[in-house]
Amino acid sequence: PGLANLGETSKKKESGFLMLNLQQTIGDHFVKLTTRQWQAQSPEEANRIQVVREQEDVINHTVCQVISLLWTEAAADQRLHESLPSLNSPEIWKKSPSPRQPDQQVWQSSFQPSFVSHILSNRGVDISDFYQSHFQDYDAYQQDKYHEEKNPLGFLNLGVSENKLCVDLITERLCQNDMNCIEEDLLQYSDWRGHPLLREEVARFLTYYCRAPTRLDPENVVVLNGCCSIFSALLMVLGNPGEAFLVPTPFYGGFTFVSHLYAKVELFPVHLESEVRMENSEPFQLTVDKLEKTLLEARQKEKKVRGLVLTNPQNPLGIVYSQDSLMEYLEFAKRHHLHVIIDEIYMLSVFDESIKFHSVLSIERLPDPDRTHVIWGTSKDFGISGFRFGALYTHNKEVASAVSIFGYLHGISGITQYKLRRLLQDREWIDAVYLPANHSRLRTAHKYVTKKLRALEIPFVNHGCGLYVWVNLQSYLKPCTFAEERALHRRFLDNKLMLSRGKSYMCKEPGWFRIIFAENYVPLKLAMHRFKHALEEHNYDWM
Amino acid sequence: PGLANLGETSKKKESGFLMLNLQQTIGDHFVKLTTRQWQAQSPEEANRIQVVREQEDVINHTVCQVISLLWTEAAADQRLHESLPSLNSPEIWKKSPSPRQPDQQVWQSSFQPSFVSHILSNRGVDISDFYQSHFQDYDAYQQDKYHEEKNPLGFLNLGVSENKLCVDLITERLCQNDMNCIEEDLLQYSDWRGHPLLREEVARFLTYYCRAPTRLDPENVVVLNGCCSIFSALLMVLGNPGEAFLVPTPFYGGFTFVSHLYAKVELFPVHLESEVRMENSEPFQLTVDKLEKTLLEARQKEKKVRGLVLTNPQNPLGIVYSQDSLMEYLEFAKRHHLHVIIDEIYMLSVFDESIKFHSVLSIERLPDPDRTHVIWGTSKDFGISGFRFGALYTHNKEVASAVSIFGYLHGISGITQYKLRRLLQDREWIDAVYLPANHSRLRTAHKYVTKKLRALEIPFVNHGCGLYVWVNLQSYLKPCTFAEERALHRRFLDNKLMLSRGKSYMCKEPGWFRIIFAENYVPLKLAMHRFKHALEEHNYDWM
Repeated sequence: PGLANLGETSKKKESGFLMLNLQQTIGDHFVKLTTRQWQAQSPEEANRIQVVREQEDVINHTVCQVISLLWTEAAADQRLHESLPSLNSPEIWKKSPSPRQPDQQVWQSSFQPSFVSHILSNRGVDISDFYQSHFQDYDAYQQDKYHEEKNPLGFLNLGVSENKLCVDLITERLCQNDMNCIEEDLLQYSDWRGHPLLREEVARFLTYYCRAPTRLDPENVVVLNGCCSIFSALLMVLGNPGEAFLVPTPFYGGFTFVSHLYAKVELFPVHLESEVRMENSEPFQLTVDKLEKTLLEARQKEKKVRGLVLTNPQNPLGIVYSQDSLMEYLEFAKRHHLHVIIDEIYMLSVFDESIKFHSVLSIERLPDPDRTHVIWGTSKDFGISGFRFGALYTHNKEVASAVSIFGYLHGISGITQYKLRRLLQDREWIDAVYLPANHSRLRTAHKYVTKKLRALEIPFVNHGCGLYVWVNLQSYLKPCTFAEERALHRRFLDNKLMLSRGKSYMCKEPGWFRIIFAENYVPLKLAMHRFKHALEEHNYDWM
Repeated sequence: PGLANLGETSKKKESGFLMLNLQQTIGDHFVKLTTRQWQAQSPEEANRIQVVREQEDVINHTVCQVISLLWTEAAADQRLHESLPSLNSPEIWKKSPSPRQPDQQVWQSSFQPSFVSHILSNRGVDISDFYQSHFQDYDAYQQDKYHEEKNPLGFLNLGVSENKLCVDLITERLCQNDMNCIEEDLLQYSDWRGHPLLREEVARFLTYYCRAPTRLDPENVVVLNGCCSIFSALLMVLGNPGEAFLVPTPFYGGFTFVSHLYAKVELFPVHLESEVRMENSEPFQLTVDKLEKTLLEARQKEKKVRGLVLTNPQNPLGIVYSQDSLMEYLEFAKRHHLHVIIDEIYMLSVFDESIKFHSVLSIERLPDPDRTHVIWGTSKDFGISGFRFGALYTHNKEVASAVSIFGYLHGISGITQYKLRRLLQDREWIDAVYLPANHSRLRTAHKYVTKKLRALEIPFVNHGCGLYVWVNLQSYLKPCTFAEERALHRRFLDNKLMLSRGKSYMCKEPGWFRIIFAENYVPLKLAMHRFKHALEEHNYDWM
């Protein structure tokens, strides 16, 4: 395979388009550079700006000349003009990874094609394509959801991480009278960081459930509409475009979308392996050695690494980091001046009582408190993802202040903030009613699913926390490739079952899937039935 | 003044920093370029990607050499090395418009300084700085709000556009039993476009209140958490970074922040003037002639213009576009293949019964329906900005689909969506109770404020719609500059009165302020008293 298989003409075409792309990308960049709005506050400043602009013009011009030259050469060498098909065909742009319309003449080039315009910008097309490739199954599910009576043949969803086991308890609590408050303050614009009373409650709540050694400060809390918004805002203010954050794989796929949409920060994978090579080790174990090696690798690739992203309890592995491990990761980060973004969104979903969860907020002497940022929300632990609530706790006021700005575009409605405050405030109900019931139901559902998996002789990873098991279906892939993983995933969908596959968690090894078990008995039973049926069907086709 | 006033050393320093900036900016750009994630789906594709990467490396290298050369020359010529102060001082970076840490070595440069690292990235610092310069007064107000009994000396806010006149009616309506619904669907993740039932209701609502000739399609509705989120999402999918949208000035300042934060799209001002030069003309009148000239100007500056942003009823002018004018603007846009984003957020706040508002959705034959996108929300018309609700209506399904993706990071809580649906559904209450009361109260407050302004002989613009008057305080500026406008604004703040000034609306002429009158009698009276006092104080100081 390889180069020989690739038609010479099509290779040239592709090169041509990508040269165009590059030209346009740099063009866009210069437009941004030269048109940014500098508002001079004084004549002195205006002069300085003028000097700078002139300087930039020189560089701009030189760079353009170089690129123009390269263009001419490339066109002559490769006869790009000849090999390019009609450039009016919109399909062409769909094919290149980051299509651009080169009708924006920033500099004089020897090559000036003109193209039809689209409705969406190239960025718009990129975003749509990216989304389609990642979320189309979810959209299909939204259109055709399973319902016991109304739509028994609809999609069963063990793919999206939702806890549906305590809807009764939450509904009952939310329907109580104390939840409804319509005050003027809630109806108007609020502090972008979130309503002060909610932030106070979040600080109290985290102090208690994270076992913080001292009371957490409400001024260090920012609430936005979901943990992904918090994550996105952190990447925006801690990283620059093109910079990288280390993330152990497999990791939550939403991070990939979020880092791509706005922050344009790269998530650099720390690839973990299922094979256990050392004593006292676990599958997919994260070690400092792995982190060090990956950091080196990233730096060799000339990437600027700004931080490390951890999820604890881990998703999709269902691992809780020991306090020692956690400290090692934090020390590693400190050694290299890396931020640590730690997502503890499953912290109250540790249902195995023998497992002890340690929040980073519980650590007496954090290695680098100024660079340690914790995310938590109610989506998973309270099964109310529809509330769109995420909270940041950081010891660093500069970070809290910078993230709070994002409340402008990621705010939560005041009345929802009020309900959240009441919910988090009701420690008695949480401790005596909700958490025991939730944990007990999670245990039962987990037991049910793992029993089925054992009966099917399917290996899995989970240590009694979270809403999911991470299952190994490699024996169903022939050969064991991502293409086959995709085929098996398709097979589940054909059986109206949504699961999520390893690829979307950046897992290095094909064949892993995540199954959500936090579903009620009837749909869960049916889903496991469809699961088994899909696997049988898949095996049969291969026999 | 000018260059002579500027110390030679400080000029060189500034140049040095900006060269560094530029170097780093281009560096970032190349990192982004070379590290973007191309997932090859086949060996052929992997090869193509390899070819492209090699090609890019060549360009990268050449560009770097040029810049490196320029650097050496610049350093030699201007003795930058000598004139640069200790680069470890963090203050330095605060001063340059877009500070960068050049510790990310993308290419070999002859100049390799090393700097202390900060907590925030340079982008983070940029965002913080931008926010601080635009919103610091708002933060001060949030900390020290006026309250009749609890804080009578606190800030009175006639700066932020909120309608506080109907809190009683809205509160009463929202407290009714039909508003509280806790269903499983509302508690879980929803369709990113918004709950189907809410979108249906929005389509019905807009069909009715915008007098659409045919029923609007719920599939073309997207709801996000606020109109600014819709605006931002539209800019993201309709424009590329560095491209421009025309916006007549003065315009809503939030647009500037929003376009800067994510989309990096430039809002290119169509500067309108207060002076009336033609018959049948109004102050700040938008004409097609103005639009054509500005478009030409933008193109001469080599800007790619993607669209036109309109607000109708206009904010801060309080102008409602006639149907003829509207059609002319839309025809202009069609001629030039421009998108039109039209913000109709004040559409139900036309309180003067002699004025007829025409929504673009009422137009039988829209010139270019595929490129016409309407924004509406409940923040102003129902005085519930705290609900964080904004809706898009576009005839173009591709745009609706692309914008819906942003629901991932700009979603509204399910329970709030439910309440909004009920509110919009209650046409009887809206028509018989709410709108008549709201309009009557707006009229009264408007009358009160304009009477005060007349007594002070202060000219103003407003035609009986919106929540604001646009007042001319040029006679209080000596000289009439933006520096003096700022000083007068400061004077209002010293008198614990928040107003917003023309500069933040990109108004070309200094001396204009926006006063919100949709405030209850007691605070409004006190605010106008502080207003008068501040002006007297200001005049006295100048005598």
